[in-house]
Amino acid sequence: MTFDIRPLLGKQASRVEAVLQSLLGSALLPGEIARPDRLMQAMRHAALGGGKRLRPVLMMEVAKLFGRDDDGVLAAGAALEFIHCYSLVHDDLPAMDDDDMRRGRPTVHKAFDEATAILAGDSLLTLAFEVISSDVVHEDAGIRLQLTRELARASGLGGMAGGQMFDLESENRTRSEAEIRQLQSMKTGALLRYACRSGALLANAQSDDLERLTRFGEIIGLAFQLADDLLDLEATAEQMGKATGKDAAAGKATLVGLLGAEKTRQELDALLREAKELLSPYGTRAEVLISMAIFIQDRSH
Amino acid sequence: MTFDIRPLLGKQASRVEAVLQSLLGSALLPGEIARPDRLMQAMRHAALGGGKRLRPVLMMEVAKLFGRDDDGVLAAGAALEFIHCYSLVHDDLPAMDDDDMRRGRPTVHKAFDEATAILAGDSLLTLAFEVISSDVVHEDAGIRLQLTRELARASGLGGMAGGQMFDLESENRTRSEAEIRQLQSMKTGALLRYACRSGALLANAQSDDLERLTRFGEIIGLAFQLADDLLDLEATAEQMGKATGKDAAAGKATLVGLLGAEKTRQELDALLREAKELLSPYGTRAEVLISMAIFIQDRSH
Repeated sequence: MTFDIRPLLGKQASRVEAVLQSLLGSALLPGEIARPDRLMQAMRHAALGGGKRLRPVLMMEVAKLFGRDDDGVLAAGAALEFIHCYSLVHDDLPAMDDDDMRRGRPTVHKAFDEATAILAGDSLLTLAFEVISSDVVHEDAGIRLQLTRELARASGLGGMAGGQMFDLESENRTRSEAEIRQLQSMKTGALLRYACRSGALLANAQSDDLERLTRFGEIIGLAFQLADDLLDLEATAEQMGKATGKDAAAGKATLVGLLGAEKTRQELDALLREAKELLSPYGTRAEVLISMAIFIQDRSH
Repeated sequence: MTFDIRPLLGKQASRVEAVLQSLLGSALLPGEIARPDRLMQAMRHAALGGGKRLRPVLMMEVAKLFGRDDDGVLAAGAALEFIHCYSLVHDDLPAMDDDDMRRGRPTVHKAFDEATAILAGDSLLTLAFEVISSDVVHEDAGIRLQLTRELARASGLGGMAGGQMFDLESENRTRSEAEIRQLQSMKTGALLRYACRSGALLANAQSDDLERLTRFGEIIGLAFQLADDLLDLEATAEQMGKATGKDAAAGKATLVGLLGAEKTRQELDALLREAKELLSPYGTRAEVLISMAIFIQDRSH
């Protein structure tokens, strides 16, 4: 059932990149007064230049499962990617995780300065809401509003930003398994869940399908985090291209630390089985999504 | 034509405060997983505790001019105030303007820490978009979307955040009058313009009225900035309750510096005349808005 999806994912990521490029051009939208060069450069540094574009590609593949593949899905995917990119810029700041490098390039505050990085993050976050609420996204205003509101909830104090707060508070503090799961469902899970759920919303999926794909998004979030924890524990710095063992060094408890690698792998396998079961009604049409779930799980092997 | 509007403005500000309070409560919205205590405390520190609430009160008074005064206007006003508050939190950061005090209280990064202040700002910004796109704001989904999109444009890279970028770049650099006017129309003008324009949109104002109130908002923005520059130049630290002469100390050019105090006062007077002329079709119904314009101008005397 699995095949090499990397060429397909690469092609989808390129489509996303093109949209991000055009949204970060110098043309003004109505109501905008000027786009400062330095701010634009910092935003482009943060948002362009490749990457797997996992979140928008998930959104696109889910929408395609229900027959939709158009500029609206791409725009919604770009909005979600802007949220992801802003979070990386702010998380990398000296006051937060203090990272100098990302994907082999200097982080925004290193390539520019801290003030510019703060503003670039703020501006990417704001641009995400401009884009997700724009007419091109969907013909139904009610759907556009729902996508906007749910994006805010997934990324704000009760989602991603709140998860980062819990994570910062986790240094040198004991966390229960339930607390770690909650933290991770907020910090990384909420946007991945949104990616899959919003793909179904964009394609006007029926409520049973919407629930199925929402749960699939939660599974992707869990698998992503577990695989990441395993990688952090086991990979060498060379394999990762960035510092590893960082969570342990910061005294942060991880699920792998609590459960052990063996039990973590078992949970990953169970999640994959659940994902296959969930998407079984769609037959071979769902094979790209299943392959993506396997791809995410496989990062840890 | 003028009267003491302070009691009325105070009452309106209290109504805004109550809505901000309730939006920053511990109750979860659908889709939110948890609201971290520390993050909520920082957001409440940033957004509650008084202030004139100039932007939402302007919005409310404009909506009232066209017969609307309901929970939707208050919610939209709260969203705008969250944007204003987030910008203060981030502007106060050490990497930006590096301010320790605001309104006689420690700034958020002083009362908490830098990471928490960054996240609190991010979360207030995100919450603003949750609120402005919510059903309570207006019965017409198209209006809610327009309010959302215009809020993003007024506060993002082509508006407020872009203006802050230009402002940071202004230190020890010569700026032309046109450049300073552009910077100020972005940094402070865009949100004040939005306040008045969105009040008219919320009340389903006709297009001629919408244009009139949009221009009134631009005038308020200009008058606010000119009065602020005069204050910064002339007031003693005691009168202001914060450091003054800060722009000059940072080597930032201001319009007052270029035009001189006398010409600045003349421009303020001309703006007030234009405001009165603009609102003359509404007769005495507009006297609160005119009084607010005078109030803003009078800050400099």
